[in-house]
Amino acid sequence: MEMKLVLRFCDRRPGEGVADITQLNPKQIRNLIRKGKWDKPTAGLAMGNAQANLVILPEKYAFDFLLFCQRNPKPCPLLEVLEPGKFKTELMASNADIRTDIPRYSIYRRGKLEATVKEIKNLWEKDFVTFLLGCSFSFEEALLRAKVPVRHLEENKNVPMYITSIPCKPAGVFHGPMVVSMRPLPPDKIVPAVKITSRYASVHGAPVHIGDPLEIGIKNIKRPDFGDPVTTKRGEVTVFWACGVTPQAVAMKAKPDFCITHTPGHMFISDLLNEELALF
Amino acid sequence: MEMKLVLRFCDRRPGEGVADITQLNPKQIRNLIRKGKWDKPTAGLAMGNAQANLVILPEKYAFDFLLFCQRNPKPCPLLEVLEPGKFKTELMASNADIRTDIPRYSIYRRGKLEATVKEIKNLWEKDFVTFLLGCSFSFEEALLRAKVPVRHLEENKNVPMYITSIPCKPAGVFHGPMVVSMRPLPPDKIVPAVKITSRYASVHGAPVHIGDPLEIGIKNIKRPDFGDPVTTKRGEVTVFWACGVTPQAVAMKAKPDFCITHTPGHMFISDLLNEELALF
Repeated sequence: MEMKLVLRFCDRRPGEGVADITQLNPKQIRNLIRKGKWDKPTAGLAMGNAQANLVILPEKYAFDFLLFCQRNPKPCPLLEVLEPGKFKTELMASNADIRTDIPRYSIYRRGKLEATVKEIKNLWEKDFVTFLLGCSFSFEEALLRAKVPVRHLEENKNVPMYITSIPCKPAGVFHGPMVVSMRPLPPDKIVPAVKITSRYASVHGAPVHIGDPLEIGIKNIKRPDFGDPVTTKRGEVTVFWACGVTPQAVAMKAKPDFCITHTPGHMFISDLLNEELALF
Repeated sequence: MEMKLVLRFCDRRPGEGVADITQLNPKQIRNLIRKGKWDKPTAGLAMGNAQANLVILPEKYAFDFLLFCQRNPKPCPLLEVLEPGKFKTELMASNADIRTDIPRYSIYRRGKLEATVKEIKNLWEKDFVTFLLGCSFSFEEALLRAKVPVRHLEENKNVPMYITSIPCKPAGVFHGPMVVSMRPLPPDKIVPAVKITSRYASVHGAPVHIGDPLEIGIKNIKRPDFGDPVTTKRGEVTVFWACGVTPQAVAMKAKPDFCITHTPGHMFISDLLNEELALF
């Protein structure tokens, strides 16, 4: 069950069922979600606005997890951290309630998925610390604008993701390998892709590896650990970026007593523009 | 007393007394310091290597302070954070002991300077959390290489620093205004200076303000709050960078029961090259 959910972590298939939701602004969408009227994936919504991954942990794990993110900024790009008990975002959106404004939440006890729910008001504790982390949706939009192909979007698939042999820097109880996403590129698009994604340091940034998958411990590029395999055309090079599955996988591996995440694909939609996340 | 120390926070006057210390590598210098043979400022030592500011706080303040740094990366660029009780660096140097390898430490109780000492082994507690933060020495070297003038170095002064009206984003008990350093530049050097320092995001990064000091609440450019006034020549523009005095000032303002910092100017000399801190 966990695995299947992770598979859809970066699911991009646009939501259906609310005819004009793609025309709504972030605040309007969060309102719909808050009222329980939208509990589907958020890909394709509020295009141009940053979406974020969610991890909520009891305070006793918070320093270690914050430190893990600080030490591993590429897979764990922190966009906002709320103090213990706070559930209103301050930087990413005005007046957003983290307990209700995400379409679906996954509840984990000791690393095991217990349920998915539409709100967490009744589960909320005063010592909960909320972490919002960047997502590669933001830089993919920039790649497309520059005519750099994004294969899984072309093929209407989920991005292929792989567990690598690159260790994250451990912090307290949190440790584990880096998970990466892969986008195959023709050689003349590699430099533009590096330059563009370098600007998005707060949403995974530049690639972590270009070329032979074996170099980072990936034995079979056709069999991603999560997501879907995509076509690598003749002459194309496999390019790998740190992936936001990493912090969730690491959090689960530590088997915290309790942990809440967004249900994969069901992200927090922020008021921040992707362009505001770009460096320089 | 506190003020005077802060004045010398970025003191660059090269140390004297050990004839050839400027020729030693970081490990050799740390060894001298560990043996108590060097307790002077570190400016001018191990040129090309990054030096770091030190803040040590009991664990109960650690999450708030880490969060403060996460929210204010320009004034508080974290280079390494050690888990509670750890005193060996892992990222910035191999086999460096944070309790002995800094020339001089300042001991604060409830925000008041109590003493400066040459080592802190006898003061060490199992719940101490160590924060090492970047320093503008790193980007000044890059500016000089690109023939961008650094006035306070030309005039053999300490960089002028100012308390601004720019609020830092508060976190828990930590809050306060951003402190900035100022370097006047001829107009044709502004763009190169922005580009160069932008690469050094882990050591304060791009300027926070260019032009009229009043815009950021600085009323008299000739009277810096810390450091020395420098000459602004006709036609030059005042350019302001976030300054590493900020986290120390903020830590003191919160009046923690206990806090240890490096004594201003007496920095941690790391094995990292400044160039390794540059982005891209």
